[in-house]
Amino acid sequence: MLETRISILTIGDELLIGQVIDTNSAWMGQRLNQEGFEIHRRVAVGDQWADIWQALDTCMADSQLILITGGLGPTADDITKPLLCEYFGGKMKLDEQVLQHVTDIFEKKLKRPMIERNRLQAMVPDCCTVLHNARGTAPGMRFEKNGVQVVSLPGVPHEMKGLMEDAVIPFLHQHFTRATILHKTLLTAGVGESFLAERIQSWERSLPEFLSLAYLPSYGMVRLRLTGRGTDDQKVSEALNRQFDQLLGLVEDILVTDRDETMEQVVGRLLLERGQTVGTAESCTGGYIAHLLTKHPGSSGFYQGSIISYSNPLKHRLLQVSNETLQSAGAVSEETVKQMAESARQQLQSDFALAVSGIMGPGGGTEVKPVGLVWIAVAGPEHVRAQSFQFRFDRARNIELTALQALNLVRKAILGKESKEG
Amino acid sequence: MLETRISILTIGDELLIGQVIDTNSAWMGQRLNQEGFEIHRRVAVGDQWADIWQALDTCMADSQLILITGGLGPTADDITKPLLCEYFGGKMKLDEQVLQHVTDIFEKKLKRPMIERNRLQAMVPDCCTVLHNARGTAPGMRFEKNGVQVVSLPGVPHEMKGLMEDAVIPFLHQHFTRATILHKTLLTAGVGESFLAERIQSWERSLPEFLSLAYLPSYGMVRLRLTGRGTDDQKVSEALNRQFDQLLGLVEDILVTDRDETMEQVVGRLLLERGQTVGTAESCTGGYIAHLLTKHPGSSGFYQGSIISYSNPLKHRLLQVSNETLQSAGAVSEETVKQMAESARQQLQSDFALAVSGIMGPGGGTEVKPVGLVWIAVAGPEHVRAQSFQFRFDRARNIELTALQALNLVRKAILGKESKEG
Repeated sequence: MLETRISILTIGDELLIGQVIDTNSAWMGQRLNQEGFEIHRRVAVGDQWADIWQALDTCMADSQLILITGGLGPTADDITKPLLCEYFGGKMKLDEQVLQHVTDIFEKKLKRPMIERNRLQAMVPDCCTVLHNARGTAPGMRFEKNGVQVVSLPGVPHEMKGLMEDAVIPFLHQHFTRATILHKTLLTAGVGESFLAERIQSWERSLPEFLSLAYLPSYGMVRLRLTGRGTDDQKVSEALNRQFDQLLGLVEDILVTDRDETMEQVVGRLLLERGQTVGTAESCTGGYIAHLLTKHPGSSGFYQGSIISYSNPLKHRLLQVSNETLQSAGAVSEETVKQMAESARQQLQSDFALAVSGIMGPGGGTEVKPVGLVWIAVAGPEHVRAQSFQFRFDRARNIELTALQALNLVRKAILGKESKEG
Repeated sequence: MLETRISILTIGDELLIGQVIDTNSAWMGQRLNQEGFEIHRRVAVGDQWADIWQALDTCMADSQLILITGGLGPTADDITKPLLCEYFGGKMKLDEQVLQHVTDIFEKKLKRPMIERNRLQAMVPDCCTVLHNARGTAPGMRFEKNGVQVVSLPGVPHEMKGLMEDAVIPFLHQHFTRATILHKTLLTAGVGESFLAERIQSWERSLPEFLSLAYLPSYGMVRLRLTGRGTDDQKVSEALNRQFDQLLGLVEDILVTDRDETMEQVVGRLLLERGQTVGTAESCTGGYIAHLLTKHPGSSGFYQGSIISYSNPLKHRLLQVSNETLQSAGAVSEETVKQMAESARQQLQSDFALAVSGIMGPGGGTEVKPVGLVWIAVAGPEHVRAQSFQFRFDRARNIELTALQALNLVRKAILGKESKEG
C-alpha cells in the first residue's frame, strides 16, 4: 500500500511557551483522517528562522505532503513567507488577484482605510501557487520540490479551516492515493484500563493485523478506538464492523455509548430520541454543565435552562433550599442537592433536572468536607436520587469530572438504570 | 550565552488523529519558561515503533534535554518503555520500590485486587534512573546518552505535572544553566493588528536586540507580548520594564489590561478590588460566561450566580421579560436583553448583571436576524445599556466571541467607561 506521509509544521513562539493551545493540529488531524489520510508527525517550532528551516528539512526528507500553519500575519514576527520564498528559491512579486481581494476586504467588509502593511499581504513568492483565502487577507501558498508538496496556511483557525476545505482537501484527492482508514469508538465507565484490557485480552490478541485497538482512559472512563487500515474499503469495513460487534458484546454491562460522541452528546441524543428535556441547577460547576449541553447545535430541542446559585442566600431564594437544611446539613449535602434538583425541575419545567454542589478547590475545604467532595442529584418524573463523589484533582479537573459524572447520572436516569441506593 | 535546547516528544495516535488536544505541551512550555528554560521544538508522533525511534534520533542530534510524554500505560498500544529500553541498550528488570508503590496504590487507594498487568508497571529498563510517580502507577524514567538527558513521563496530565514539579524541574536547575527569560504581556481591544503595528512601529524598531515583541491577535483583540532574554537578570528586567512602560503609553486608550490575564480575570479582579459583584442572565451562551467567571479560584468573592433561560417561556417566567416584548421585538432584541439584565440584577442581588441573547448557529437564523447576531446588555447601579454585535464564525467561536465582548462591556461598566449610546 502506498502511504502518503503527511507532516504538520506549526510556527509560533506562543505555542512553545504555552500561551496558546494548538487546536489547529487536532482539527487538521481529524479532518484529514475522515478523508482517508494520516498524519505521521507534528512539529511545532518558534518564530526563529533557523529552527523553521531545519524543521522543514526534516519533514522534506520523509514526507509527501507538509502542511504549515502560522507566521503569515502582517507584523514583524511573521517570517514564514520570506522564509519559504528563500527555501524554494523564488522572488517576491505582487499578486494582483490577492491585492484586489485585500482591497475588497478593507473597502467592503472592514470599511477602514488600507495601509501599506496590508498591501504587503499581496506580495507572494513567484515560485508558489497562490491559494485563495476567502476569509482573510493572508493567502495560502503551495510549493513543490523533489516531489514533495508544501502548503502554507494562515494560523487563524477559521481561515485555516476554510483553506483546508476549499483548496487542500480537493488537491489531496487529486494527487494522492487515499487509504481506507476507518475508526469505530465506544466509551465505557466504571472499570479501569488494566481490568478492561484483561477482560478483552483474548479478543484483542486475535485481531487481524490491519485492525488495531487504542485505549483512551480519562476521568474514570475508558474510550476504546478500533481502527482498520487497508486498500480495500469493503474488506476493512466488514472486518471492522464484525470485530467491533464482538467487542460490544464483551463490554455490554459497562457501555456508555458505541459511537464517537461525548457524554453530553449521549445525554442530548437520548433526550431528543424520547422527546424529553433536562434543566440544571449548578453551584460548584458554575455553568460548565449548561455550557457542555448547549455547545452543540440543536440543544434547544432538549435543554431548558439553568439556575446557577453560587451563594447560599441564592440557593434559598432562587432554588427554595430551606434555611434549616443549609444550616444543619450545609450547602454540600444530599438534602441540599435533592432540594435544588426538585426545585429546578419544577421551575425549568423539564422532565429531568440535575443539581450539583461541591468544593472544587483549592480553597474552601474542611476536615469533614474536603476539597473534591461533590453531591449530585437527579430529579426525574418518578423520584430524585443523589450520590456523592470524592475527587482529588485540581480545580479544573474537579469541575470536569463533576460534570462528567453528573451527566452520566442523568444518562442512567433517562435509561432507568439508576442504582437503588440514594 | 549557553543555550539549553529542549525538545518535547509526545507519543500517541490520539494526538495525530485529533481525538485528543495536546494540552500537556502547552503546560510544560509555560512552566519551563517560568523557570528560565525554553522549548525549541515540539514533536508529536503516533504509537509506531519506527516513527518514535526516528523522532528520538532527530531530537537527540540537537537537544540537551528531551521530555517525552505518553505511551507508558499498561495496555498493548503503550510501547514507549520497551522502545526506550532498546534505544538506550538496557534490559528490563523489576524495581522493588515501584512494585511496593503500585501494590500500595491498589491495596490502600483503589482497594481492588492487583493483576499481573499492573505488576508489569514495576518493570523498568536497568539503564535508567527511576523517577517516583506519587500520583500513579507508571514511573517516570531518566536516561542519559552522549550528554543528552532524556526524561520519559506519563501522559496523564496530573501525573505528568507532579513529576515535572517533583523531579524534572529540580534536576534542570542542578544540571543546566538557566537563562533569564522574562515576559510582559498586555491586551488591547478595538484596533486591528496592522493598525496597532503601524501605531507602535517606531518604538518597535528601536527595541534592543535582546527584547522581542510578539502579536497575538484573536477575536478582535490583540495581545502584545514583550520578551527579554539574556544572562543578566537585572539588565533584562530593567530594560523590559522601561520599554513596556513606553509601550503602555502608546496604547493607553485601547488598553484592556497590562497583565497576562484573561478578560474574565480582569473583570474578577476589578470587582474584587471594588468589593462589587456580578451576576449573569445567559441565553445563547448557555452558561459559558458563568463558567469562565467561576473556573478561577476565588470567584465566589465576586460572582453571585446566573439564570440561564434557553427557551422563551423561561425568559418570561424566570426573568420577567414581558410577553409583549418577546412577541413584538423577539428574544434577540435590545428590549429583551435589557429586561433580562435588570431582572437578573435584582434577583441575583448583584451590583452588575450581564444579559446575552443571540443566534449562535448553524441553525436559527433569519433574513432579519442572521446567525451571529447577538444583543448584550449590562445593568449597573445607575443604568442599563445594550449593544448589538454581528459575528460571522461557527457556533463555538460565536459563543467565545459573545462571552468576550460581554465581559468587555462589564469591564467598561465597572470602570464607568461605557459609550453614551444604547
